[in-house]
Amino acid sequence: MKLKIKKEILQDGLNKVSKALSSKTLIPVLSGIKFDLSKKGLTLTASDNDITIQNFIEAKDVMDIETEGSIIIQGKYVLDIVRKLPDEYINIEVIDDLKILIYTENSEFNLNGISQTEYPNVNLEESKKPIKIPNNIFKSIIDQTAFASSNDESRPVLTGLNFKINGNILECNATDSYRLARKTIQLDQVVEESYNIIVPSKNLIELSKIMPDTEDLMELHVFNNKILFKFENLLFQSRLISGTYPNTSNLLPEDSLLTVSTTVSSLYSVIDRASILTSDKEKNVVTLETDDNKLFVRSSSLELGRVEEKMVVEKDNDENIHISFVAKYMMEALRSFPSDNVDISFVGEIKPIILKSKEDPTLVQLVLPIRTY
Amino acid sequence: MKLKIKKEILQDGLNKVSKALSSKTLIPVLSGIKFDLSKKGLTLTASDNDITIQNFIEAKDVMDIETEGSIIIQGKYVLDIVRKLPDEYINIEVIDDLKILIYTENSEFNLNGISQTEYPNVNLEESKKPIKIPNNIFKSIIDQTAFASSNDESRPVLTGLNFKINGNILECNATDSYRLARKTIQLDQVVEESYNIIVPSKNLIELSKIMPDTEDLMELHVFNNKILFKFENLLFQSRLISGTYPNTSNLLPEDSLLTVSTTVSSLYSVIDRASILTSDKEKNVVTLETDDNKLFVRSSSLELGRVEEKMVVEKDNDENIHISFVAKYMMEALRSFPSDNVDISFVGEIKPIILKSKEDPTLVQLVLPIRTY
Repeated sequence: MKLKIKKEILQDGLNKVSKALSSKTLIPVLSGIKFDLSKKGLTLTASDNDITIQNFIEAKDVMDIETEGSIIIQGKYVLDIVRKLPDEYINIEVIDDLKILIYTENSEFNLNGISQTEYPNVNLEESKKPIKIPNNIFKSIIDQTAFASSNDESRPVLTGLNFKINGNILECNATDSYRLARKTIQLDQVVEESYNIIVPSKNLIELSKIMPDTEDLMELHVFNNKILFKFENLLFQSRLISGTYPNTSNLLPEDSLLTVSTTVSSLYSVIDRASILTSDKEKNVVTLETDDNKLFVRSSSLELGRVEEKMVVEKDNDENIHISFVAKYMMEALRSFPSDNVDISFVGEIKPIILKSKEDPTLVQLVLPIRTY
Repeated sequence: MKLKIKKEILQDGLNKVSKALSSKTLIPVLSGIKFDLSKKGLTLTASDNDITIQNFIEAKDVMDIETEGSIIIQGKYVLDIVRKLPDEYINIEVIDDLKILIYTENSEFNLNGISQTEYPNVNLEESKKPIKIPNNIFKSIIDQTAFASSNDESRPVLTGLNFKINGNILECNATDSYRLARKTIQLDQVVEESYNIIVPSKNLIELSKIMPDTEDLMELHVFNNKILFKFENLLFQSRLISGTYPNTSNLLPEDSLLTVSTTVSSLYSVIDRASILTSDKEKNVVTLETDDNKLFVRSSSLELGRVEEKMVVEKDNDENIHISFVAKYMMEALRSFPSDNVDISFVGEIKPIILKSKEDPTLVQLVLPIRTY
């Protein structure tokens, strides 16, 4: 293997695939990045057995392809080397079978490589009929819902994001049983088969980090136990979580007692301040109460003291509400709205709270209240 | 106690004194900040028994001083509250003896306070003849030397910065026995008494963070077992380390075999890259070698591979050197120079390496070589 490549292009590719490198892998070869050079271009692959990322750099973006070949290079070191080299172009050459030479005018790195034959077989096959979605829409699905998934491995299905596709409707749900985030979008195509799959949310969060915010179409290739995302020159494959995702539709109340309209930013900072005095940042329960057009958020701790925050809101009727919830859940739900206006609907003290925004009707956030007495 | 104060001024004062708050204090009252309000102004005090910081906000900078008084408020919470309040002015009032009310138009915090009688007696006395130094000069002393102190508590004197004052000369030394940083400055005054004291470097690093970069004079008040720094409206007191600081003057060689001149930035990045393949970031030994006007930095690891970096330098004669040192120590020494030019003098393979800069003759950095064979 022998090539010359623009530093910037190589660094970008390495950064992207490195999201699949795990520091705690038990299989040493998986701490490496696989380089495959052919006349068509350079393919970089990294995997932690849970996700696999492959980036293809086309021949036109590689300066010189002198000798084809494959080798595995320690991921952490090659990233560091490429990042710290000041040169515009970098040469990489395999000498003596498993010795890698990375060099520029004044720098020369001689690394021990691993034979590509030791790399596990990663099958990044594509399906015949992929589902197509614009990159930026799919990125927003992840960013607006995945945070509501559970981190608790005792119920594996809740650690994933549920994708349901029927016809031209894609519905995504994330819930940790205390809150629910739902995004429903209309596809530009009618999908023949229906799907109901669960993708690990932590993998999707890594995916979102390397996805471009463009309107170009990405492809979803769904298989029985895995899913492949394809965009630009990247392949990102994740396992699926097996099991049945709970039906969340009956959680969303049909009517509401009262809807309060306000700005995301002001309500967010009111709840943020009201939760300062709760000592446990994970279980910071605050109480919300309306009185005419005033909204109060309060919390108290025997040890520390109490807070009362006040703000003016719009209401759709004269009803009032008195309800308690976990500040963190409400703040994360508020933060998921791209616009600054939000409508919060209440059904009753022990009924789910619903957040919607007129500017983004595809998104619904639900937060369950906490009984405080 | 009852006052109204500009948020910005209070936040700045709280931020400064909070550097003395320790999260691991065994004395609960020391996790609080003491507020003392008199007609003259508001005094904020925090201490962890090792350092004490006091900030005085003059009456003219406090909007309203209604009732004098003192109280201790939980440091972490009052900082968070003041930081997150959006208002321009903040009201603070002690009600019912130990209840503190912090309020603005729409926010009301009711905190449990601690009686000021429980606060340890902090004696921030001043000496009759303080030593005066411009703020920015003293800040540069700390920034350019304190990093070379030891973190190893088994030799306490080396965890401090040694200040020696004789006449109008102030010499500061920091060494962890592997390297030495020395800064020598001329004072604008002749100090009658001579001093030889050791101040804990970690305390000085906290001091540097809150010091302004101005040419105004700060005052050093030296006592037997403590030192008080006074600048702007701040008092910063630290304990001294008892013991005798090693004599470091005989470490600095008088002659040199060879002096290499180069830029700090290029040599820094050459050493940075040469140390990528050393697996232990604390003990990353690299070898430097000159050959004519070329300088090579190399390192190797059996497991990972080897690096060679090359650069062109100026030399004062035809001698050459081959020497090894800890990359981290050399990089930290290089980083301490404010200008980009540096002269590195070598006496021999097992003799100290000396770094100086024509632009800042007050600073000398010494790095001991490592025998590699």
